[in-house]
Amino acid sequence: MWRELAPVGRDGGPGAGYRRFAWTDADADCRAWFRAQAASRGLSYESDRNGNQWAWLGVATAEDVVLGNAVVTGSHLDSVPDGGAFDGPLGVVSAFAALDELRARGAHFTVPLGIVNFADEEGARFGLACVGSRLSTGGLSLEQAHALRDADGVTLAQAMERAGHDPEGIGADPERLARIGAFVELHIEQGCALADPDALEAMGSLRVPGSSAGPDGCPVGVASAIWPHGRWRFDFHGEANHAGTTRLADRRDPMLTYAATVLAARAQAERAGALATFGKVAVEPNGVNAVPSLVRGWLDSRAADEETLAAVVAGIEDAATERARADGVDVRVTPESRTPVVEFAHGLRDRIAGTLGGAPLLPTGAGHDAGILSASVPTAMLYVRNPTGVSHSPAETAAEDDCAAGVRALADVLEGLACR
Amino acid sequence: MWRELAPVGRDGGPGAGYRRFAWTDADADCRAWFRAQAASRGLSYESDRNGNQWAWLGVATAEDVVLGNAVVTGSHLDSVPDGGAFDGPLGVVSAFAALDELRARGAHFTVPLGIVNFADEEGARFGLACVGSRLSTGGLSLEQAHALRDADGVTLAQAMERAGHDPEGIGADPERLARIGAFVELHIEQGCALADPDALEAMGSLRVPGSSAGPDGCPVGVASAIWPHGRWRFDFHGEANHAGTTRLADRRDPMLTYAATVLAARAQAERAGALATFGKVAVEPNGVNAVPSLVRGWLDSRAADEETLAAVVAGIEDAATERARADGVDVRVTPESRTPVVEFAHGLRDRIAGTLGGAPLLPTGAGHDAGILSASVPTAMLYVRNPTGVSHSPAETAAEDDCAAGVRALADVLEGLACR
Repeated sequence: MWRELAPVGRDGGPGAGYRRFAWTDADADCRAWFRAQAASRGLSYESDRNGNQWAWLGVATAEDVVLGNAVVTGSHLDSVPDGGAFDGPLGVVSAFAALDELRARGAHFTVPLGIVNFADEEGARFGLACVGSRLSTGGLSLEQAHALRDADGVTLAQAMERAGHDPEGIGADPERLARIGAFVELHIEQGCALADPDALEAMGSLRVPGSSAGPDGCPVGVASAIWPHGRWRFDFHGEANHAGTTRLADRRDPMLTYAATVLAARAQAERAGALATFGKVAVEPNGVNAVPSLVRGWLDSRAADEETLAAVVAGIEDAATERARADGVDVRVTPESRTPVVEFAHGLRDRIAGTLGGAPLLPTGAGHDAGILSASVPTAMLYVRNPTGVSHSPAETAAEDDCAAGVRALADVLEGLACR
Repeated sequence: MWRELAPVGRDGGPGAGYRRFAWTDADADCRAWFRAQAASRGLSYESDRNGNQWAWLGVATAEDVVLGNAVVTGSHLDSVPDGGAFDGPLGVVSAFAALDELRARGAHFTVPLGIVNFADEEGARFGLACVGSRLSTGGLSLEQAHALRDADGVTLAQAMERAGHDPEGIGADPERLARIGAFVELHIEQGCALADPDALEAMGSLRVPGSSAGPDGCPVGVASAIWPHGRWRFDFHGEANHAGTTRLADRRDPMLTYAATVLAARAQAERAGALATFGKVAVEPNGVNAVPSLVRGWLDSRAADEETLAAVVAGIEDAATERARADGVDVRVTPESRTPVVEFAHGLRDRIAGTLGGAPLLPTGAGHDAGILSASVPTAMLYVRNPTGVSHSPAETAAEDDCAAGVRALADVLEGLACR
């Protein structure tokens, strides 16, 4: 199953990063793979109005739908630019594998089981993460969705249409979500050390001195919370000019303001024990011998609580504004997305931790579809040990044994929820 | 003549910048315009092995070629990204206009007159400036030329071929250059204030307090020298990682090193009275929620003499290396082009200044085909007043009267050189 999916969207060959962006050819290949996996297991298949894919065991009767007791698991198949193999696909592959495991155990399902692939989780193409789940929960308005464009100016609706998906119906999908009694997303662990090194040590992460990702550690953890986080676009407007003839004193060079803001962001985050990253930048005209007219930088910032996050971003804005004045540059800051803190449902979380025999509880700074869904549905997450913590990179990795342990843990959890 | 050329490569409409990159459709339109201008004046036309366009009045006999006494004028028609209307085209348009003026005066040419459009002067597509003239003088080897690629990986040879130009013959062209006894390039002035505010004041530049670009100033100046300059590519290699989960202490973020280097470059240049600019940057993977694996920044630096330039660039490299160590980043610096100081031929320069009645002598930081040719041919430049000094920008401008004065001055110079 893993072997079929591995080459999709990795044009650079083994070792290169993945480029599985929403509604591209690579994404279509991933979606075809999902559909084939559903068919080979005799599951009923649907692609919902927002392009999320669902494979159902059960849901044959209207009664099941009305009861709203379905148990759903899954994740996403798209990737960041040059991403790793596990972030997303591990949750979908493990979902199918857990179903196989439960069938092998002879489990008898008392409620419908769903496996889901959420569309466009990473937001690599349109700049907003979790578009598929945000649309379904109503967290993303139609107006906002129609304003999304990729780097080539293609709208989300155009991209969906080109990929053969009718974009007419996109929007909130309360009836489909109402079927769900519990959603469990399995995901590779990505740095829970942020707030809780003890939990990481319990997992036996290589990142904690003295511990090792061996049989002593616990290969699977349970999510406690997702840090509040967001994206802010900083536009630095200067004046284009010839780099070979314009005196330094006559320049309004926005690259200087951008550079000072990048360093200020790091300093602010360090001071607050938070995260702040400028990972994406766009420059106009972007010529070697031209002072830029515009430098656009995207800030990703996250913190353990809302107040800290607001203070960090305000501090970065202040630093940018002050430097912009000295450089003769105009700075404009546009919030592009904002996800509040997510505390996963305590009842479901504790029940799952119990099923898994006291697995460690881990907070994370990463956003997930599970975080979006948690506003509408009782939601939980399982994390599979990542010995290096590296993620969003081709170097992202998990041991085969740990992945197998993740499948068994997910099967245990689903058995507890759907087969009682 | 100007009106026909004005809309080419300016898709954004009036007020937007030009995008006339070498061997693109916009460039082909410019080249067709050149050919039509030559034909309409009964000039013989040739496109040489490197794609430079020549229009000849005379050169009918082998004797003319052997004598090597042709007088040539011209410039280039390509542009930087979002460039202005004058940088390049003013010299080509003025060349045809000066010929018209001389014919109107009834001038009798005693030597052949050539008008040239050099290919790919700005280097906006392949990253190296003055490719056409560098190839012809042998300043760019075939090996170096074949290594040039644009942002999409298209080689120079492929781009030429797609534009209908056989790339087989590219390379040094000593026979064609041997025809030339003198080359004069007219160009919009771009910031001669760099080294000589007195000269700028004599031109009546708006940039000198108290002066105005009025009839008292001198609308045309003569080039004295071109500052040595070059381009250096700085590759900052870090480690891609998830921006939402990787602790600051665990990161190797090359954006930080890049930002510190941008600020160090400015400080080094200020201290030395030189120029240093990072105007172009490329980031991998360039995702909002990914710590970059690679930030690539291009440094353009220029100074009045070779020693100062070398010291400024060494200072920037040192600052980058030191910061890279702190950030856990690898930095590699690759010189991409290097143009030594150009002192224009004193004899030709003084003769031209005499013809123009003591026009001011101006140094500049901008590279030109005239600078490349000066290694092979006696070469001079005329500068037309630019009231704001703004260049490589849609805001680049020159008054119509000053352009007309430039044409008259160029006609006077050509008359003195070719009609004696």
